[in-house]
Amino acid sequence: MTTKATNHDELRCFFEPESVAVVGASRDPDKYGHSLLKNLVDLGYKGKIYPVNPRADEILGLKAYPRVDLVDNDVDLAIVIVPAPSVPQVIRDCSRKHVKGAVVCSSGFREAGEAGQRLEEEMVRIAKEAGIRIIGPNTTGIVNTSNNFTTSFVALPKLKKGNVAFIAQTGLLAAAAFWWIISTQPFDVSKVVGLGNKCDVDDAEVLQYLADDKDTKVISVYMEGVKEGRKLLSAVKRVTESKPVVILKSGRSQSGIRASYSHTGSMAVRDEIFSAVCKQAGALRVNGGIEELMDITKAFASQPLPKGNRVAVITVTGAGGVMAADECEDQGLELATLSETTLNKIRCHLPSSTKIDNPLDIEPLFEAVGPADSLSIPLELALEDPNVDSIAIFFVAVPRLVPFFDLKSVIAKIRAKHSTQQKPVLTHLTGYKETVNLWTTALEAEGILVFPSIERCIKALGALWKYQQFKIKKLSKLV
Amino acid sequence: MTTKATNHDELRCFFEPESVAVVGASRDPDKYGHSLLKNLVDLGYKGKIYPVNPRADEILGLKAYPRVDLVDNDVDLAIVIVPAPSVPQVIRDCSRKHVKGAVVCSSGFREAGEAGQRLEEEMVRIAKEAGIRIIGPNTTGIVNTSNNFTTSFVALPKLKKGNVAFIAQTGLLAAAAFWWIISTQPFDVSKVVGLGNKCDVDDAEVLQYLADDKDTKVISVYMEGVKEGRKLLSAVKRVTESKPVVILKSGRSQSGIRASYSHTGSMAVRDEIFSAVCKQAGALRVNGGIEELMDITKAFASQPLPKGNRVAVITVTGAGGVMAADECEDQGLELATLSETTLNKIRCHLPSSTKIDNPLDIEPLFEAVGPADSLSIPLELALEDPNVDSIAIFFVAVPRLVPFFDLKSVIAKIRAKHSTQQKPVLTHLTGYKETVNLWTTALEAEGILVFPSIERCIKALGALWKYQQFKIKKLSKLV
Repeated sequence: MTTKATNHDELRCFFEPESVAVVGASRDPDKYGHSLLKNLVDLGYKGKIYPVNPRADEILGLKAYPRVDLVDNDVDLAIVIVPAPSVPQVIRDCSRKHVKGAVVCSSGFREAGEAGQRLEEEMVRIAKEAGIRIIGPNTTGIVNTSNNFTTSFVALPKLKKGNVAFIAQTGLLAAAAFWWIISTQPFDVSKVVGLGNKCDVDDAEVLQYLADDKDTKVISVYMEGVKEGRKLLSAVKRVTESKPVVILKSGRSQSGIRASYSHTGSMAVRDEIFSAVCKQAGALRVNGGIEELMDITKAFASQPLPKGNRVAVITVTGAGGVMAADECEDQGLELATLSETTLNKIRCHLPSSTKIDNPLDIEPLFEAVGPADSLSIPLELALEDPNVDSIAIFFVAVPRLVPFFDLKSVIAKIRAKHSTQQKPVLTHLTGYKETVNLWTTALEAEGILVFPSIERCIKALGALWKYQQFKIKKLSKLV
Repeated sequence: MTTKATNHDELRCFFEPESVAVVGASRDPDKYGHSLLKNLVDLGYKGKIYPVNPRADEILGLKAYPRVDLVDNDVDLAIVIVPAPSVPQVIRDCSRKHVKGAVVCSSGFREAGEAGQRLEEEMVRIAKEAGIRIIGPNTTGIVNTSNNFTTSFVALPKLKKGNVAFIAQTGLLAAAAFWWIISTQPFDVSKVVGLGNKCDVDDAEVLQYLADDKDTKVISVYMEGVKEGRKLLSAVKRVTESKPVVILKSGRSQSGIRASYSHTGSMAVRDEIFSAVCKQAGALRVNGGIEELMDITKAFASQPLPKGNRVAVITVTGAGGVMAADECEDQGLELATLSETTLNKIRCHLPSSTKIDNPLDIEPLFEAVGPADSLSIPLELALEDPNVDSIAIFFVAVPRLVPFFDLKSVIAKIRAKHSTQQKPVLTHLTGYKETVNLWTTALEAEGILVFPSIERCIKALGALWKYQQFKIKKLSKLV
């Protein structure tokens, strides 16, 4: 318990600082030291901001100081963006000021070769002696949407509160990928933590911190190397008791390990060991890159966990049913045996010769009762069917359907009517790009997720089920 | 040689009929028999069209006939869209008229159970006796963009000529997925062949036909079952001598096989055997669904084959480099060892402490020389570098870059300057959705392909290299 409290208190300065010094703040709009400060001002961070720059009196309307230790108030956190060789001295200045933590954005440390490695070691030694915690170096650091705080030097859009936290051994997720997330994903972000070279604070500590973060429901991790495997394992275990952890780990191959060493000076770990550890700890490791990380994350962010592995597939294309069946088997999911009630209620709309099965090819229904009912009838039945735990819908979005059919209303109405049935409902659309995009935006605004392929839709269901299985097993051991 | 000629002549009626009868043409706009006829008229097919319907004198301004054999001119091809039980009689009528081929769109055959299977057998028997070839049943059939001919009953957009042919054991690719292709893919289609239940004409025959089709550069196949393995193998072998064949096969699992049986009455084939056959025949089997089928197809449609497996990765994110390195290893690609000339010419723009390697993290260059040159300098060098066979570029697309930087011009200019260097250049963008889409459209219009993830970009390079390897091996055996 003490460790936990300490960890939480120690890392708090990185997420909820009351005052920050931006060391390396610049008046030149082309410098990162400028855009970093501008982010803090523009996004509306309410804490105190102290630009530190020996050659400026004022930057962006804020009084500037020549050194951190000359700031005339307390400083919780230093954000450091000066050239690497100057960083150790900055940390010494921070020490005199009793700064609690530093996010070191500067690069040129371990990832840059021997001289950089020595610099990093010196910086860490000074920080340890002073009790200063460090995130980085070589990172964009923090985004916290609950208080509009960031250490990112990449211009960011207005922040929106959400329930997904990202931990990343790269600056990307607090930079370009952040733009991607907010402009394409149906979830919003609670926190981003770019760990860079992980010279001090590592994934394990941040995971523990986020386990207690009430704003965070799902934790997504991009990782290149692991320093202390056991520490990570026990942290992940603790988090997965209450929240899903989705992990994308690169540095899987020899070339990847070499590349990751020049990127973040990462420690290699044998890939199959890492996979085994994830499994044991209940974390979901994805192997389909950032796309799959986002797919699984968005499923956890908005969907209930399925009670079992029985999927009803409602598809307007027969080929979709076949591909879904293959992917279900890969994911440890079963095609649900639809109840007699369900089958009979579908049968009564169709010619007697029509075979009805799961995957349910609704093309005959589409012809018999029109597009809206061809979907709402089986969806309603599947939600009520005690043999069904989750539902996948594959539909077509072509311009001629739009005038007389609103997919969102059809699905949303049925789902609202059966809101006591906590079953994940995931969809995939194909057809004309503009119609697909129109319907996707409308559906996702209602919390009905759309995936770009059948396989990705079923994989997301598989991830929900894997985590549910882990929780069930865990519970059964406790009883 | 005789077989080849025969095959080509026999199947020609399906793609280039001079006259077609639409059996089951309807005046009711809600019926497939109406939309099928309307497609032929609207898309501008120039051959003779004869609607066949015993209860109509005229449909869509065309004179209607009560039976095929009562049409007062020759009929090359019958498109049949009447209920399954009436189809055998229609084929008898066709026989009297000496029709060469029939596309049977109607469903309710082998895929629908025993009665349907008997109907299918009867239909096949009649057709065999009469020398009529059949495509289908249970399909949307043909799209030929070179003469605006189609048998699809799903409303299609205006056709544009292209170099990619699709063969599909589903109607989907001549229906909703066709809309998807034309609205999202940078290539255009030469032909689509939906084979449905494959009661007569199968993939092997169509492959042979397309091998000789001058409009077709790449052949993409969606397949559920295989009837005659050896026949398919030899057809694929023949095609891959001159054109790449990309195959997505579902029905990989027990559930998939069952689902595929109800979809198209497909014959199962052991999955590992199918993979081995593809490899032997030089076909590229994809395992990432329709998305991967499209990724690989678009790469073949516009890119030269790489001379070797050495990739230069130019990336603005370090994490991108690591993920690319992993995927290269998975794909049998190597990270190129950049030549001293290349390294020196990059070095002269950077501080001496900067490590330069492949993956080439261009973030330091970006800071030193700005976004345009950070890309054009290494791209130009990689195109000229004799150690580099193909190039992958990962860049960010965020709104603030747009006003002073046009990614398309940068890449297109350099590529034009070095057009004698036949190297594939594939890209991936991340960032703000609108900017990504804007740049993607602009780039793909110039033949510079953009992929939605790093992994998918490298996988496409891998496919180009795999096919090139196959061709090299084949050649070395001939010498």
